[in-house]
Parts: sequence; structure tokens; C-alpha cells
Amino acid sequence: MSTKLSVGILGATGIVGQRFIQMLEHHPWFEVSWLAASDRSEGRPYAEAARWRLKTAIPANVAKMTISPAKPDGAPKIIFAALDASIARELEPQFADAGCAVVSNSSALRMQSDVPLVIPEVNGDHIRLIDKQSWRSKSGGFVVTNSNCSAMGLVLALAPLHRAFTLDAVTAVTMQAVSGAGYPGVASLDILGNVIPYIANEEEKMEEETRKLLGVLKGAQIEPAPFAMSAQCNRVAVEDGHTESVAVRFKKKATAQEIIAAWNNFRAEPQQLRLPSAPEQPVIYMTAPDRPQPRFDVDLGAGMTTAVGRLRKCNVLDWKFTVLSHNTIRGAAGAALLNAEWLKAKGYLG
Amino acid sequence: MSTKLSVGILGATGIVGQRFIQMLEHHPWFEVSWLAASDRSEGRPYAEAARWRLKTAIPANVAKMTISPAKPDGAPKIIFAALDASIARELEPQFADAGCAVVSNSSALRMQSDVPLVIPEVNGDHIRLIDKQSWRSKSGGFVVTNSNCSAMGLVLALAPLHRAFTLDAVTAVTMQAVSGAGYPGVASLDILGNVIPYIANEEEKMEEETRKLLGVLKGAQIEPAPFAMSAQCNRVAVEDGHTESVAVRFKKKATAQEIIAAWNNFRAEPQQLRLPSAPEQPVIYMTAPDRPQPRFDVDLGAGMTTAVGRLRKCNVLDWKFTVLSHNTIRGAAGAALLNAEWLKAKGYLG
Amino acid sequence: MSTKLSVGILGATGIVGQRFIQMLEHHPWFEVSWLAASDRSEGRPYAEAARWRLKTAIPANVAKMTISPAKPDGAPKIIFAALDASIARELEPQFADAGCAVVSNSSALRMQSDVPLVIPEVNGDHIRLIDKQSWRSKSGGFVVTNSNCSAMGLVLALAPLHRAFTLDAVTAVTMQAVSGAGYPGVASLDILGNVIPYIANEEEKMEEETRKLLGVLKGAQIEPAPFAMSAQCNRVAVEDGHTESVAVRFKKKATAQEIIAAWNNFRAEPQQLRLPSAPEQPVIYMTAPDRPQPRFDVDLGAGMTTAVGRLRKCNVLDWKFTVLSHNTIRGAAGAALLNAEWLKAKGYLG
Amino acid sequence: MSTKLSVGILGATGIVGQRFIQMLEHHPWFEVSWLAASDRSEGRPYAEAARWRLKTAIPANVAKMTISPAKPDGAPKIIFAALDASIARELEPQFADAGCAVVSNSSALRMQSDVPLVIPEVNGDHIRLIDKQSWRSKSGGFVVTNSNCSAMGLVLALAPLHRAFTLDAVTAVTMQAVSGAGYPGVASLDILGNVIPYIANEEEKMEEETRKLLGVLKGAQIEPAPFAMSAQCNRVAVEDGHTESVAVRFKKKATAQEIIAAWNNFRAEPQQLRLPSAPEQPVIYMTAPDRPQPRFDVDLGAGMTTAVGRLRKCNVLDWKFTVLSHNTIRGAAGAALLNAEWLKAKGYLG
Repeated sequence: MSTKLSVGILGATGIVGQRFIQMLEHHPWFEVSWLAASDRSEGRPYAEAARWRLKTAIPANVAKMTISPAKPDGAPKIIFAALDASIARELEPQFADAGCAVVSNSSALRMQSDVPLVIPEVNGDHIRLIDKQSWRSKSGGFVVTNSNCSAMGLVLALAPLHRAFTLDAVTAVTMQAVSGAGYPGVASLDILGNVIPYIANEEEKMEEETRKLLGVLKGAQIEPAPFAMSAQCNRVAVEDGHTESVAVRFKKKATAQEIIAAWNNFRAEPQQLRLPSAPEQPVIYMTAPDRPQPRFDVDLGAGMTTAVGRLRKCNVLDWKFTVLSHNTIRGAAGAALLNAEWLKAKGYLG
Repeated sequence: MSTKLSVGILGATGIVGQRFIQMLEHHPWFEVSWLAASDRSEGRPYAEAARWRLKTAIPANVAKMTISPAKPDGAPKIIFAALDASIARELEPQFADAGCAVVSNSSALRMQSDVPLVIPEVNGDHIRLIDKQSWRSKSGGFVVTNSNCSAMGLVLALAPLHRAFTLDAVTAVTMQAVSGAGYPGVASLDILGNVIPYIANEEEKMEEETRKLLGVLKGAQIEPAPFAMSAQCNRVAVEDGHTESVAVRFKKKATAQEIIAAWNNFRAEPQQLRLPSAPEQPVIYMTAPDRPQPRFDVDLGAGMTTAVGRLRKCNVLDWKFTVLSHNTIRGAAGAALLNAEWLKAKGYLG
Repeated sequence: MSTKLSVGILGATGIVGQRFIQMLEHHPWFEVSWLAASDRSEGRPYAEAARWRLKTAIPANVAKMTISPAKPDGAPKIIFAALDASIARELEPQFADAGCAVVSNSSALRMQSDVPLVIPEVNGDHIRLIDKQSWRSKSGGFVVTNSNCSAMGLVLALAPLHRAFTLDAVTAVTMQAVSGAGYPGVASLDILGNVIPYIANEEEKMEEETRKLLGVLKGAQIEPAPFAMSAQCNRVAVEDGHTESVAVRFKKKATAQEIIAAWNNFRAEPQQLRLPSAPEQPVIYMTAPDRPQPRFDVDLGAGMTTAVGRLRKCNVLDWKFTVLSHNTIRGAAGAALLNAEWLKAKGYLG
Repeated sequence: MSTKLSVGILGATGIVGQRFIQMLEHHPWFEVSWLAASDRSEGRPYAEAARWRLKTAIPANVAKMTISPAKPDGAPKIIFAALDASIARELEPQFADAGCAVVSNSSALRMQSDVPLVIPEVNGDHIRLIDKQSWRSKSGGFVVTNSNCSAMGLVLALAPLHRAFTLDAVTAVTMQAVSGAGYPGVASLDILGNVIPYIANEEEKMEEETRKLLGVLKGAQIEPAPFAMSAQCNRVAVEDGHTESVAVRFKKKATAQEIIAAWNNFRAEPQQLRLPSAPEQPVIYMTAPDRPQPRFDVDLGAGMTTAVGRLRKCNVLDWKFTVLSHNTIRGAAGAALLNAEWLKAKGYLG
């Protein structure tokens, strides 16, 4: 009999739900025992309900699993949630209320003051906000979130720089993959031979979340990092991987060598604890003048490593560079999974 | 017998050379009578030498024209040049020396102090630099250039703003079409499902040219515009049309309404003179939240109009917006053609 | 006051509905006066209800037009229908019943024995089936259809061959554009870097419709052409234009020269009558070894000409070749429009 | 000290050369010790000479290896050759003459009567042709070839059917990936939003090679399989994976069930010998109505398995179906590697 922890997936049929299932297939600590999705899918075997869009096959045990109603009764105590924001806003509190640890990829509660928005390598201590959640005291349940897929790579690239040189201003222009919009998501007629210079609410999320993630836990509150932050978000004809053209201004002086060293040497507790999904190297600086590129570099560190390249002086801010991150792995399912591993390491999963 | 002016095309078989031929087919003032390309093409009929990559057919008279050697003997007095920089650097002076008006799309001489880099709507007066050229006094010949394709749309969008509010800083991140790299240019294995965050020398060109174009003619010299300018250039899987995410800081206060009015009301002498290739409206502000897009908007004003959209406040600079411009029409062949029309209107073509 | 005939469009907001509006903008005979779409769109101005996906702008008068309920009351007497089959099956008879000439692009009634499936150049006489329709005798209304987009190009290429050499067997493998699936249609995650070797019901339609179109009107019936026909349908990452690899076996001997002549010389009554949407040359044989290609040749004859190329011997059947046809122009809206012009020319529109 | 056999790669910098290096990185029998490429690359470290286009990193030992001249002196006795046909025709005989076992992916010598064209699962016994080669008797060297990438998947799908039901006629229409054209290969301007209905010499190769591969070794000769075979080859915007729409006519009766069983049960000596690169299941029938698809299924069996789907009756021949095969793995480097393993198992590598 398995000694792994049972986990459930809310929103199991979507693109991020599929990534959860893929990444959990051989996970040493967690085991999928429960799947929920929309009413339309309820009661059907997973393989039939989901339009599977990954290259690896559906794990055999999951393929046959029946989709449960999206209700806490009968659900395991650890829930990965990959729901649209509007549904998440309603369902996640229900599960937390019923005593579940809700590890959410949704934007619904990310900016709520008592909900930690966490990247374990960056602000792992923010999980202590959990203790302020009313669900926690009532039922033991809680909600932890990870960031938007476009904020994720950016923050991993910024964190070591902020630590060393203190950010004063950041601009980021994204070129985001279509998988970030879910399935069916972006229509092919909209993106073939095209760039869409708009993703609803994305710029606002990037700007807010980046500053919360790099903020400081003061008492019961996160004080957002005080730098100015501006995002411009574009959709491009790429399957997986968000590329970003970033510029930064620091409070302190920095040389190119110091910046690159800050990236390459960046390690944190998840690496020391050897959490199963923690990449050996969270940020890698690529020296080739034309890298990183999504088609070739998106899978670095099994999709959990952020690639950075093209560091050079900026005439307006101080420095500019390119960031690449896998949007459905490090930017979604992998982020939540690492959060769950972090919670377990820190004793929050019992 | 035609009373049109005979023109020749240097580099007639390339992507920009093809656009010249396409745009000149029914031109009221100019008529193609001479084509030159690389040695490999010399002596062959154009239709056989060129790998035609446009949707309209090769004009019948051009199809049969024999490719001449790339030498001034026998060439007409007006030459459109669409050569690689290294070849242009050698050939363009030869043609100017021989008395030709060389209307060049190449980067070779753009930043030379006595060579005008011109957008007629923006800095048409810079053509007076011609009078400083030694070719001019010697043989009557001269060289006039247009900007890089990525600088073109940007400068058209910036010009009315600079005039009204005085630019202090500009950042631009480009998502450039593959046609900008010529033919064969970008390999499909490099761009399918990909973003290439690097185009050799492109950022330098954008930064320098933008400031020269918005600069001021003082005596025999162009004083570059004094604002700070930073560019990041990316290649995306788009056939035609460079999209740019731009941010600006002004010296003077501006409201969104004033900015949009500055764009929509922008007209200049080429419009008043009704030059054949001058678009009725050089810059159009699109109000839909997700426009402009290359797939749908690149052909506005027959590819000569720059589309702008998504004006909104920037947390780091003052304002941000999206710019789209047709890179082989307004950004190359159409630019040179309009320059030639401008030269004619101003009496430089005899 | 306009003397043009008023026409309405059922399904005006979809991809084919948009093409109808685009093609009717400057039509000499017809004028759009009424638009209907799904309940969701009803009562809204067209520009707001439609997600316009074409490069030309929405005609100003249409942009402001209010979407009517999809009911015959108040509709004009000529209706272009671009509805999904399931809805068409219900609505088209209602409009015919109310006395409308329904010129339909839907598959719903195409194979019904008293409904003509017509390409004016190929089987224009089949419209006489109209006289057998019960709607006709009752209210004067009737339904005429055009073929599936993938059958259209094929039949135009086959018709002159069948006439001259009598088809015995035909195989066609299609590579179809995403616009054929409507909007939003094919998800970008499904088609980027991919081929989908399946389009629901498409092969059946191609096989049936091709034989009905090339069939013979005998009394009140169409006798389908007796050749064997097999189709394999694939979706590829192309915006517009269905490419087909075709092979044929004839009853009679044919040389390559005769076949090419049959294509290039093919003209029919619509050409003689100079119907506004009839292409000068319905079929063009391209001699370049690698043509036709959708990206470059789809707009031949304003999208109404079928391009053929690569004629060569087949080791299994007799001959093989490539066919290209614009799927939303000649294969949909343009087909229906030409049918309407044909009906008018033949006195069926009063 | 390694007991692996030293191997060299001719044409190591190209797309197929890169696949060789990737597939040999952890190979249990072979070890790369020598790399050669064009003169331009000679003397440079591999990592600098090659434009690496794969997702995995260049193996560290190979990255530093210096490119040797493409001459037999100093080369190991086993050579994988990934050269253009014109160069292969000159170089491969030189290496065979010098005593090398040349395992070639080139088309140059494939159809030469004493050169085996081999797929170990299909016609492994054809390697006995080696004994007829003059190189063999002179120096011990020889040349063995694998098929064109488009013939490979087809033949693997046909072999079990030919064995069971005897092919009478085959038609295949391909939709081929751009990686099949090498690097830089297909220009992005040629393939974005496009289908190219022509690949030089490809149809001839498919038709000839398929019949040689399914032919019978009679004495010193291969008697080609006597069925009729017709190919039509198209290029599409897919990175890896050739998709083919195939139809067949048999001499014997077959049911769908029997055909599918023939595919799924197909095993051969390479499977029994557990050759390192032999897929467990050479051919897999996929039951989903819309599979196989290159984006999702190309890596089945580590790229060595051929996927088949959509079996259905054909109105012209007997049956039709879709085939998918990885063109640079099973269709090129993996094919040659399996050939080398086969040669070793059969005692041809000393």
C-alpha cells in the first residue's frame, strides 16, 4: 500500500490540470486520487472527458479515474486548483473551509492580503500568512497561490538582482505562448502570422504580483517591494514558453559580471532541501548572443529553470536582458507543485 | 512615348527589390527601365533570376527585362538601391559619383554626416544635406537614405509627440516579421514556434537612426534629438509587419486625448503635395483594445500608414502604446519611393 | 435611390458571413439591407456583434446595421445563408417557405434530391431542380446551394477533364486552411506545428458532392457522375486556401498537353455573361514546378480562380496534379454570390 | 577504458549529424570519437562549428571535439554518413575503399544494385548484398544505406500488410516537416502560412525505395516488389514528423481487424535481439479518430515507432489510412543507428 499523500485536482481537464497529472505521475510524495472538473465532465472517465494536449500519454490509472463533482465531500485533504478565476473565487474558499490545503494556480485570491503568493526560492517565508487565514483556525484548511505565468519567470530573474542591487524600476514586454490561454484558448485564425498586443488583465497582474512576491512580510502583512513596475503583454505563435524583454534600474551600482554571477549563483532553501520539483539551478544565464529561445530552451531544468540572456546596458534604465520561462510548468502546475512540496517541508501538510 | 522618369533598381531580385518593382508598376512619375543584381543573376531575364515572393504577379515588362551588371554605365539617373550594407557601401558611392540620384534603403551610409536620412513627413528638410555631398558638386549625383524598417514605424509614431510634448526618453521592444531579414533570410527551423530575441545590429540602428531622424538640421549638420533611446529587438513568426511595444517620457505634460489627437491629426507636406505614395493619414490611432495586429492591420494606407494603439499610462516612463508598421513597404521600398517623390517635388531630380 | 436588389445575410457574424459582407460592398446588383445572426447578437450593431477577421474594414453602412432576429418577417427576398448545418436545416426551409430565394453555403440541404447543388460554370442547368421544390409552387421561395469548400476547387479542376476525357476514378488528399473551420474554429494549440488528419464529415461531403456536381440532370433528378471517388482530408496551419493532391483515371486517352489545354481553355456561360463575380479564367494551370501555393496564389482571380499545377503521370491512376482554391471566397461566399448572379441572369430572382 | 566501438560521423554539423550525436550520447555499444564536416568547419571545435538545433545540450565531450578533414586517414572503422547526395557520392566510396563500414543516410548509393537499402525489421537479410561489394573483398569496407525519410514510415506501415495481404497498389501523399530539408533548409518566408507542393526528387525516391525495401533478395540481386506505387510530396509548417495519407490495394482479402492486428503485432528480429535502438513496437495503430498528429505523436517509441491511424475503406483502392514517422530519428539518424546495430548483431562490424 502506498504511503504517498493523496491529492486531488480541481480543474483537472484543462491545460494546467493536464500538466498537474503529468508532473504527478511519478511524484515521490504525492499521488492523484481525485479529479474534478466542470459539470459537463462529471461522472465520465478522465480519458474521455479531457482533450489531452501533451506529448506524454495519460497515466493509465488516471485515464480510468472518474471525474468527481467539484465539492469538498470525498475530496482528499490536499487540492491542486487549476480553475478559471471566476470559478476559483467561489470554489477555493469552500475547499479551504472544509479543511483542505488548497494549492492554487488561479488569480482569484492571489492579491488577497491574507493569502500567500509564493515562489519558494524567492519568498518562501510568506507562507506564514496562512496562520492568519480564518479557514486555518476553523478547519485547518488554507489557500496558497502561485503567480501568473508571466510574472513567474520575471520574478525569478529579478529576485537575485533585487537582493543584491535593490530594484528601483522594472519594465517588461512579454511575448507569451498560446498555452497560457488554456484550451481551446487562442483561435488559430487570431495567431497564425500574427502578434496580439493585448491579454486581458495580464499587465495588471504582472505589475501587482511582481511587487507582492518581492515584498516583505511585516507582521501579518506583505509590504510590496517599492520599485516602479510596468508591463506590456503580447501573445505570439509559440506553443510553450513566455519570452520577455526586460529592463531594470537599480539603487546600487552593478557590473555585468556581478549581475550574471547573481543569477548563476542563485540558490535557496528548496535547492538545499532537494525538493523533488526544485530545479538544481533556478536561473541560468545563457551566453550565446541569441538565447534564450522558447523552441530550444523552454525545457531547461525540466521546465522549472528560468533562462536569462542578452544582458547589456540600457540607455533609459540601467540594464536590459531577455527572460524565458515555461508557462505551464514553472509558470503554473510546476509552481503549485513546488509550493506543495514547500508546504510539506515546512510542516503545513500534517 | 512615356514621359515618366526612368529609374533603375540595384538589388532588384531581393525582397525589397521585389517590392520596388511591385510599387512602381503603376507609378505615375517613375518607370523601371533597368535592373541590376548580383553577378549570379546578370544577363538573365528577371522572372528567371528572381525568386518572386509577392502575391501579385511580376509586371510583364519587368519579367522579361535582362539583369544588367551592377555598374553605373548604362544605368538611368535615378537609382533605387536595395543592397546589403557591405555591398551598398561599395556600390552606392560609385553610382553617386557617376551622377546618379541614389535613393537607398541600405544602412551603409545612413549615419554618414553628409547623407540625409529622411522621412518626408518628419524631417524632409534634411535633404538639404545633399548640397554638402562631394558627389553633388562633382557630377550632380547624391545619396539619400531611409531608415531601418524597425525605426520607421517608431519615428512616425514619435514625431507628432516629440513636436508637441518633447521626448525625454523612449524604450521600444520590437517583434519583427521575417520578411525584414530578406530572402532566404530566417530559416523555418529557427522561427516556427519560436521567438528569436536578437537581430544583429538592429538595436544600434534603431537607437541611432531614431535620434538622427528626429534631430535638427543646423548648418551643415544634423544635431540628433537629445532624448535617451533604448531598443530591444525580437524576431517572431510573422510574414510582414513589425509590432513594437513602446514607452515614452515627455518633457511636457500630455493627456491621452492630446496624444491621440497628435497622432490622428498629424499631416505634413507630402500629404499637402499629394505625393503619389504619401498616405492620406500617416498615423492612425486604433481604438479597439487589442489592435493594431500585423495580420489584420499591416496594409493600412496601402502599407504606408503607421498604426498605433493601446495608449495607457506607464508606471516607469509616462505613457506606453503599441506601434505597427509594414516593414517592406513603409519600412523599405515605400519609404525610398516616397523619398524619391519628395526629391522630385523639391527639384532634386532635375 | 438605389436600384440594386436588397439582400439579407443569415449568419452574418461568422467567417463566411464576413466574406459575404466584404464581397457585397461594391456589388453592382446586390445591396445588403438586413443581417441576422444568433440570439446573442440580435439587436446589437454589426460592428459590435461580429469579431471581424478580414483585412479590409467593415463597410461603414454595415457596421452600424442592427442584427435582426433570424426570422423571415422583415427579411428581404434574397437571402445569403452562412449557417451551421444543424441550424440551416431548420431555418433555411422557413425562409424558402416564406418566399425567399435562399442562396445557401450550408451542407444541410445540399444532398437533398430537389435542391440544386450548383457551380454555374459546371452544372448551371441543375438550377432547374428549383421548379420541383414545394416551396417554389407555394410561395415562390426556393433553396440553392453551393458545395463544400474542399469539393469546390476539385470540381472546377475536374469539370473540364470529365467533359473531355470522362473520369473513371479520382483520389484527393486535402491540406485545408483553418478559416474553413469558421471562428474561433481550430484552436491554436491544435494546429501550430501540426497536421490534423481528420475533419468531421468532410470526406463524405467531398465524395458525395463531387459526384452530384458532375452529375447529369435527368428529368426531376440528378444522376451522380458514375466515377469512383475517394477523399482524405487534413487540416494544416494555413490561414486561407485549400491545397489538394489529386490523382485521376480517365476512360479516354489524354496527353499532358490536352489536359492543360482543357484547363486553360475552360470557359462557361458565366464568363460569357460577364457575371460580376465570375473570374475571367475559372481554372489556371501554373507551370512553375512548385506551384500553386496558398500563400502566394490563393487570391488569383480575386479568389475565384482555381489554380492547378504539377501535372504528371501517376503509377497507380493515370495522372496526378495539385489544386488550390480559396476556401472562403470561391469555396463559400463567392460561390454563393456567383450562384445568386446566375439565378438573376436566369430569371429566378424576379 | 571504454570497450565501446569507436564511430565517426561524416556531416556532423547538419541536422541529421546532430541527431546522430544526440542519439549516440548514451549508446551502450558505440562511442563518437571522430567528426568531419565541410572544409569551412574543419579544425574548429564542434560546438562552435555547428549551429545546434536540438532541445538537448551538445554532449560535453563532443562539444570540444575538433572537426577533422573528411578523409579516411585517422577515421575510425565505423562511419555514420549524413552528407548531401552529391558529396556522398564522392566520399562514401572513399571511406568504404579504405576499409570503413559506411552506414549512410544519403540517397547517393541507395539504388545501386550491390548496396543494401535496409530497414532491419523489414528486409534485414538484404545486408548480404555487402558480400558482393568490391570494397568488401578489397579492404573489408562496405556501404549500407537507409531509406529516405518519407519512405521510412510508409514502408514500416506497409511491410506487415504486404506480408499478410500482398500489396497490389499504393498511393501516398505526404505532408513533410521542414527538418527534412536540413538547415537552413526551408526559408520561413516560404512556409509560414503555406504548403509547398513540391520537394525535388522526393517522389521518385519514395516510389523506387519503397519497392526495393519490400523487394526480395534473389541471388546477388534485389527484385523490387511488383506493386504499383505513386507518391505526391508536400512540405508543411511542421518542425518534425512526416504525415502521410496513404491508400492501398491488396491481392488478398483483408478486414479492418486483420489489418490493425497486422500492424500492432508486427515484430521482427531487431525486437527479439533487443537492439538498443529498436522500438518495442515498430508500428502502433492509434484508435482516436483524429490521430496520429505530428505535434503530439512524433516521439512515440523515442521517435522510432511509426504511428498509424484512421483506417477506413477507400472507394478507389481498398483501404486508406494515415501514417506518421519521425523524419530525423526513424527517418534518418535513428535508421542508420539501427542499421549499425543490426550489422554488429550479424557480425559485420568485426
